[in-house]
Amino acid sequence: MEEVLIENGNVLLFKNNDIIIKKLNILIKNGKIEKLFSDNEKNKVYEEYNINASKVGNSDTLKNIHIIDATDKVVMPGLINVHAHIPMSIFRETTEGCKLYDWLSKKIWPVEDKLTEEDVYYASMLSYIEMISTGTTCVNDHYFISNAIRKAAEDAKVRTVLTRVLMDSDGEDGLKQRVEEFEKLYETRDKENSLITYTVSPHSMYTCSDKALEKSRELAKRYNLPVHIHFLESIDEIEDIKNKHGIPAIDVLQKYFSDIHTILAHGVKISDSDLEVLKNMDVAIVHNPVSNMRLGCKIADTTKYLQNGVNVCLGTDGQGSGSNLDMFEAMRVACLIQGGIHENEERLNAKDVIKMATINGAKALQKENEIGSIEEGKVADIILVDISEKLDNITMVPNLNKLANLVYNTSGRNVDTTIVNGNVLMENRIIKNINVQEVINKYNKIIKRLF
Amino acid sequence: MEEVLIENGNVLLFKNNDIIIKKLNILIKNGKIEKLFSDNEKNKVYEEYNINASKVGNSDTLKNIHIIDATDKVVMPGLINVHAHIPMSIFRETTEGCKLYDWLSKKIWPVEDKLTEEDVYYASMLSYIEMISTGTTCVNDHYFISNAIRKAAEDAKVRTVLTRVLMDSDGEDGLKQRVEEFEKLYETRDKENSLITYTVSPHSMYTCSDKALEKSRELAKRYNLPVHIHFLESIDEIEDIKNKHGIPAIDVLQKYFSDIHTILAHGVKISDSDLEVLKNMDVAIVHNPVSNMRLGCKIADTTKYLQNGVNVCLGTDGQGSGSNLDMFEAMRVACLIQGGIHENEERLNAKDVIKMATINGAKALQKENEIGSIEEGKVADIILVDISEKLDNITMVPNLNKLANLVYNTSGRNVDTTIVNGNVLMENRIIKNINVQEVINKYNKIIKRLF
Repeated sequence: MEEVLIENGNVLLFKNNDIIIKKLNILIKNGKIEKLFSDNEKNKVYEEYNINASKVGNSDTLKNIHIIDATDKVVMPGLINVHAHIPMSIFRETTEGCKLYDWLSKKIWPVEDKLTEEDVYYASMLSYIEMISTGTTCVNDHYFISNAIRKAAEDAKVRTVLTRVLMDSDGEDGLKQRVEEFEKLYETRDKENSLITYTVSPHSMYTCSDKALEKSRELAKRYNLPVHIHFLESIDEIEDIKNKHGIPAIDVLQKYFSDIHTILAHGVKISDSDLEVLKNMDVAIVHNPVSNMRLGCKIADTTKYLQNGVNVCLGTDGQGSGSNLDMFEAMRVACLIQGGIHENEERLNAKDVIKMATINGAKALQKENEIGSIEEGKVADIILVDISEKLDNITMVPNLNKLANLVYNTSGRNVDTTIVNGNVLMENRIIKNINVQEVINKYNKIIKRLF
Repeated sequence: MEEVLIENGNVLLFKNNDIIIKKLNILIKNGKIEKLFSDNEKNKVYEEYNINASKVGNSDTLKNIHIIDATDKVVMPGLINVHAHIPMSIFRETTEGCKLYDWLSKKIWPVEDKLTEEDVYYASMLSYIEMISTGTTCVNDHYFISNAIRKAAEDAKVRTVLTRVLMDSDGEDGLKQRVEEFEKLYETRDKENSLITYTVSPHSMYTCSDKALEKSRELAKRYNLPVHIHFLESIDEIEDIKNKHGIPAIDVLQKYFSDIHTILAHGVKISDSDLEVLKNMDVAIVHNPVSNMRLGCKIADTTKYLQNGVNVCLGTDGQGSGSNLDMFEAMRVACLIQGGIHENEERLNAKDVIKMATINGAKALQKENEIGSIEEGKVADIILVDISEKLDNITMVPNLNKLANLVYNTSGRNVDTTIVNGNVLMENRIIKNINVQEVINKYNKIIKRLF
């Protein structure tokens, strides 16, 4: 594994609940952040690591050191997308004007029935291209045909939390088959590949019977895995869940998952009394602002959730309802829409959403010791964001408030370099490990067949 | 003036309340859209206009015809920003966490006091670079030191509606001086320059006494100009206006401007009874979604306003509260946030916001016979948006729904070419009439002095 040296960057660091940006250099070794050091320490570090200092500064490879010049770039932790349906690039822009249930039953499920493993592989690869090129280094999936997604994850080299979604709205046999697929998926995992981990994922409380939830609990306990479930996304769910389980969603959650780390996707309809319960549970809420707005679910009060000490992180949802996997867009919209419910009140700011998209996501995935921030000893999941003064960045000028600009005036397209586990997957906006055009071509053929 | 031929474009047209995209070619002559024609009509048109058909297809100039290849581009009407404070690029990202009044009084007004004409010129030029590079071809300003803005508008060649904002919160002398400045500005106008027109702009009902509003009315009548005023932007205004004028804002509006075409910026706090009045008045509401969210003003119910037949168009506001002048961002946020107040209800869709950003803006500015749509005989204010399948556009793949992609997956950076009045101001993302780097350098020096 090559060593990487990132020089002259504006490095984004978490310090005592604050975020600062500091001029630092970063040495990456064995996939990890070996050393963060200032220009003053350069000579000492170069000597210690036997780096030929006279050659440093060229974007050149020297004794296997890959040097990246980060001048005019913000160097920040890779973004963590905690709720996605990776292959759903297939359904991009199909949701216009739909309600959630109608959209799922009329536009999504009939096409999903026709998906092959090859379809899912290439749709996933397209999504991975989207992620790498917009700065996502870790994604938490919620889908099926997961062997094909795993194959794509291995090829794309993006940190991925996999699953095989469970439900039994079609009866007991359906559940049995899905559970078997999940067991097989998990038991055939490559234990050497630290990039791919797993959750147990019941689809939702409105598509899972008590039996399916009990089975999910059993699997999570057996394999010691977190649970990832859609939770109170839309208003229609509230009654449906009560009808199906005889108790409200929050009680269902406590009944099955009170002693299991649980990732709750959406949580738009969390009441104050629900929040009282959640703040004493081991849960994280994944906010998916674009998808919630597209589906007319109203605004999750993430300000209040955070104020109550519940971990809130960010996701894009699938491209069908979420438009894209650009986490900068998710950060911006998450921040903006709080001004739609908090009139003249304190609310989420740029720093809060940067944390949601990084360290909070790491915590939600129980990976906060590995990823989510730039610290010595953590794994090198790092992105470089171009903030140079040029026409494409004119909306950042003057860049007096870099953190606000990161949220309000940056798009995924500003990501110049993406590093996962020390592997440079994209540099100067060129993706190294995937043939982008080939994937687009294959993918377009699939789309033609399906629609 | 050169002739321009735009070939092979996906041209966005308004047809019977719908929007369609059609493969067409466009001939621009004397600044106007002379001819829209299909490939079948090419030979006939080329013969009629004496165009050497064998040379067409090269991006070359031929007998003064400037040929632009619009393959893989959407060709659409230039975007119309109906509420901006052009020189406020100076205040970009200063609003984080502020309430409207606090922000104005603590961060804006003290710096505005120090602005010179040169400051305003370069700050305006920076904003014009932002507009040209993100597809805005017409802007409605609301500021002062307007001679400097006019000089910038002339140099930038972007269609501009100018004003000199009026208010008298500092007393009668202040009003007198401002009125004189406006009169001088208007009377020294270049009558030959159709690109620059004017409004009378009282700042707001909370900063203008009855006398100032009466004076505004008188000026609008004298010069036969529309009025442009901040109107019910934040909740604090409601009581302030009642206290100042003795009657609610809607009554103040009727008292002074019932027979004058009036452009109302914001209109977030319009009640149902206000709406009953507005729908019978000659008004347009300018929605500024990003600014409203940044300032915690909550969400204007633009869906309801449109359903009631009131003209709603779009603006960015100044960059202080609106972050940037990217009207694609304004379209996207305008559309998304309606899902924050309309739960499971019909609401604004992509087509509605495209209209808001084009033809509705033209109507608001009483320019719908000139601009706002691509039609033969209208002035050529046209932009080309890059939708080619490449890494930077990966979030558009598959492009099955071009109109939804224009709103949800396009940024101002996708604008490839910007044409105003038949002048090609930007082509292949190169701005032709402004030295971008020189403006940035001058501007940065000014920022350094002011902050």
